[in-house]
Amino acid sequence: MAKTDLMKDLGPISQRTMADVVEKELRDYLKKKLFKPGDALPSELELADALGVSRNVVREALSRLRMLGMIETKKRRGMILSTPDILGSFERVLDPLIIDDSTLQDIFELRLTLEMGLADILYLRKKKKDIAELEAIAKSQDPGGKGQAFRINNEIAFHGKIYQMTGNETLMRFQNMLLPIFGYVISLEKVPQIGKVSHVDLVNILKDGSKEEFRQGMHEHLKPHFNRLK
Amino acid sequence: MAKTDLMKDLGPISQRTMADVVEKELRDYLKKKLFKPGDALPSELELADALGVSRNVVREALSRLRMLGMIETKKRRGMILSTPDILGSFERVLDPLIIDDSTLQDIFELRLTLEMGLADILYLRKKKKDIAELEAIAKSQDPGGKGQAFRINNEIAFHGKIYQMTGNETLMRFQNMLLPIFGYVISLEKVPQIGKVSHVDLVNILKDGSKEEFRQGMHEHLKPHFNRLK
Repeated sequence: MAKTDLMKDLGPISQRTMADVVEKELRDYLKKKLFKPGDALPSELELADALGVSRNVVREALSRLRMLGMIETKKRRGMILSTPDILGSFERVLDPLIIDDSTLQDIFELRLTLEMGLADILYLRKKKKDIAELEAIAKSQDPGGKGQAFRINNEIAFHGKIYQMTGNETLMRFQNMLLPIFGYVISLEKVPQIGKVSHVDLVNILKDGSKEEFRQGMHEHLKPHFNRLK
Repeated sequence: MAKTDLMKDLGPISQRTMADVVEKELRDYLKKKLFKPGDALPSELELADALGVSRNVVREALSRLRMLGMIETKKRRGMILSTPDILGSFERVLDPLIIDDSTLQDIFELRLTLEMGLADILYLRKKKKDIAELEAIAKSQDPGGKGQAFRINNEIAFHGKIYQMTGNETLMRFQNMLLPIFGYVISLEKVPQIGKVSHVDLVNILKDGSKEEFRQGMHEHLKPHFNRLK
């Protein structure tokens, strides 16, 4: 039998470990049985017996769910299903040094997309007090000679404040996680470029201008980043 | 000694398990030593010795990193650092039944934000061939009497195709993960509402209209969802 025939007939064995399989089984089980936060789970021993695997493998799989925030252990009640932190594990892997280039590029664009898309929610929820805070951040940005590190922190403070003003905590955390990746991609270029619309300009639009004007202003502000795209 | 004094002086012991601690240690170690994808990791035994913990605990922590796609085991080379799937674990926890209400609402808004923000990248990359496909999806949506399930699938196909047209795979996968949550939030309302601008209208704007017109059209299309926001 030729080697290619053999490969076609057999194919490679799945690379999944026992922990992969058990983790998937457990997640499917919780879903199928409509477990809700607070519901008690069977014990490690019961699960191992039902699945016909060792307790070590079950412990490994449960440990993964614990990391995802899906389960927690309570005094006297044992393991219960919990409300997961949906961004917790995302945060763990967002390291520019281990992410491949095409994903880095995707994240760069994802941040631009969010920035361009948030005007609607921002205009729904912006408050005078917040705009004043944003203005203070914007005006503290150009005192001259504070250097690159200050500039980057100020950039993060300004855009972070805008996200905070949307009142959407997930969006804000998500954006905060994307920023280092965004900064990394920019740092690969030698000459930093600055858009024609400054932070102070954006604050002024936010005070008196329309949603559409804000969106156009944001686009101008981010223009050098859009120019990077292919 | 009063109970409150005692609580103040002692405070609760951290809820972190040994696996939590070791997982964090390992991630910090990989980061500090600038490990890159492909680099070989020390063995389970070496790690357990260095950390002064049992092999079981190390195995648990490594199993978590394996789930995140951060490490993999290679024939003859042992464990190596890998390129993680940044959305893999996010996908695992996106279940509307276990996410709390305020996060569900956040995700609902996150999807609206992406939808409103993607015009720039879409206009940069849209191709005639893709617009024709999008048109076919849009036109297949109103044949009458195909029912709710068809309607939802068609909705997913249409918006999914738009994301695909951006050429951003992360954005597309991310959106696909958000859709069920979005659908869940909508299903909590009794009467489904439809915006004035239809899928066919959006395709026509994409053919001949400007980026700004597309964005306005998308806003009209999503109007019933924006009306839900507080």
